[in-house]
Amino acid sequence: MLFMHVLITNDDGISAPGITALGQALRKIGKVSVVAPDREQSATGHAITIHRPLRTRRVVIDGIDQALAVDGTPADCVKLAILAELIAKPDIVISGINRGANLGTDLLYSGTVSAAIEAAMLGLPAIAISLADFRTIDYEGAAEFACHLASIWSTHNLPPDTLLNVNWPKNPPSKVLVTTLGSRRYTNHFDKRQDPNGRDYYWMCNSVETDTTPHTDVWAIDQGFASVTPIHFDLTNYRLVSQVSTWPISLP
Amino acid sequence: MLFMHVLITNDDGISAPGITALGQALRKIGKVSVVAPDREQSATGHAITIHRPLRTRRVVIDGIDQALAVDGTPADCVKLAILAELIAKPDIVISGINRGANLGTDLLYSGTVSAAIEAAMLGLPAIAISLADFRTIDYEGAAEFACHLASIWSTHNLPPDTLLNVNWPKNPPSKVLVTTLGSRRYTNHFDKRQDPNGRDYYWMCNSVETDTTPHTDVWAIDQGFASVTPIHFDLTNYRLVSQVSTWPISLP
Repeated sequence: MLFMHVLITNDDGISAPGITALGQALRKIGKVSVVAPDREQSATGHAITIHRPLRTRRVVIDGIDQALAVDGTPADCVKLAILAELIAKPDIVISGINRGANLGTDLLYSGTVSAAIEAAMLGLPAIAISLADFRTIDYEGAAEFACHLASIWSTHNLPPDTLLNVNWPKNPPSKVLVTTLGSRRYTNHFDKRQDPNGRDYYWMCNSVETDTTPHTDVWAIDQGFASVTPIHFDLTNYRLVSQVSTWPISLP
Repeated sequence: MLFMHVLITNDDGISAPGITALGQALRKIGKVSVVAPDREQSATGHAITIHRPLRTRRVVIDGIDQALAVDGTPADCVKLAILAELIAKPDIVISGINRGANLGTDLLYSGTVSAAIEAAMLGLPAIAISLADFRTIDYEGAAEFACHLASIWSTHNLPPDTLLNVNWPKNPPSKVLVTTLGSRRYTNHFDKRQDPNGRDYYWMCNSVETDTTPHTDVWAIDQGFASVTPIHFDLTNYRLVSQVSTWPISLP
């Protein structure tokens, strides 16, 4: 029987139910440590804390060997856990289970995914996992799947810094698809209001345009499948490198 | 003579000298609007503000037609400026001039670059521009180069959401190179200290391992050249999609 050390983090905060669910599933295959933000950190993207120090606080979570709350972002938690050696080096880092989808261009804003990217940047295998439907509170299926992925990981010859982004559908899926990221364009608008003193303020409002291109993550979830997308963090647009090289780019 | 409407933003805050320098250079080719954070927002990554509303405040900056400070992140500023129509639709968005490099994997943490990515996601041409050396305070060369790039942009047939990341070297460069992102690995560590009450806290400390692979942005700056890297925001690792598809990925 495989025995691993798994680090769990998230962006919903250390008391979120996704952590407990992951812990319960993962303790079957190993030791589980949690290092997670002390409060909700949704939409923090890949923010890190450089202008103030970080503090940790030990917390007790049923079934978890060791749990620390950090007053920072999800990416801070992973950096601090690994580099300050708050815990022994994990075999894999799992971020989630996030309540709400992390699909397509969501990934750029997602604290859940950024924590997993941070782990991959530190050379560790990483999984980000999210419930694609806000109304679902059944974390168990997603947690079991994360456990399955973690346990088959070591028998497959993947680069050490591989990162998989998982979205779990509302109802138990008939299939798990390996997908590419779809474009999930937020047609944001802002709701302009006035406070009692007559000053304007703006609330960000979202509506989402779903991409129906087959084999994207957005499409897979729309079809009721689970979605697994391999993620990288090289933002070079190679296709444009040669094109831009032909510009009169130097100063005249 | 070209006449454009340019939106300037940054992550150093609206009173940073990089904004004034860009404004002075760009007013030669068009109307300049500034919508920028009301305070420093470095290392905020692509964070956006979803749990509270945003407020704006009109400020006066010499030579700028219209300037608004926002109590949010760089990405918030771009979203709000465009979607709440605080300003007329710009022809191009320029984020910077950041004091300090944004090279290689820095881009994931960078508020400067995230603002430009947000503009590209909204379908606008965008430039992120940074002084690669903290000690340099000569913003003028970088500002002139941003102005040059903006003015040749429209005559080149680029996708509407193209984003260029510029780093400007310490001394006036002999050449501008089109580069790929290098790996600039932060060998972070944490300095553990105790407060007067005996409680631990952790400061993040950085040292950087420079990548010497030719034609990367890190290498170009190291050689004293200016660097221009085309950026995309598709995080799919296409190379691994077929590989992971061969796993026994479905639940047993």
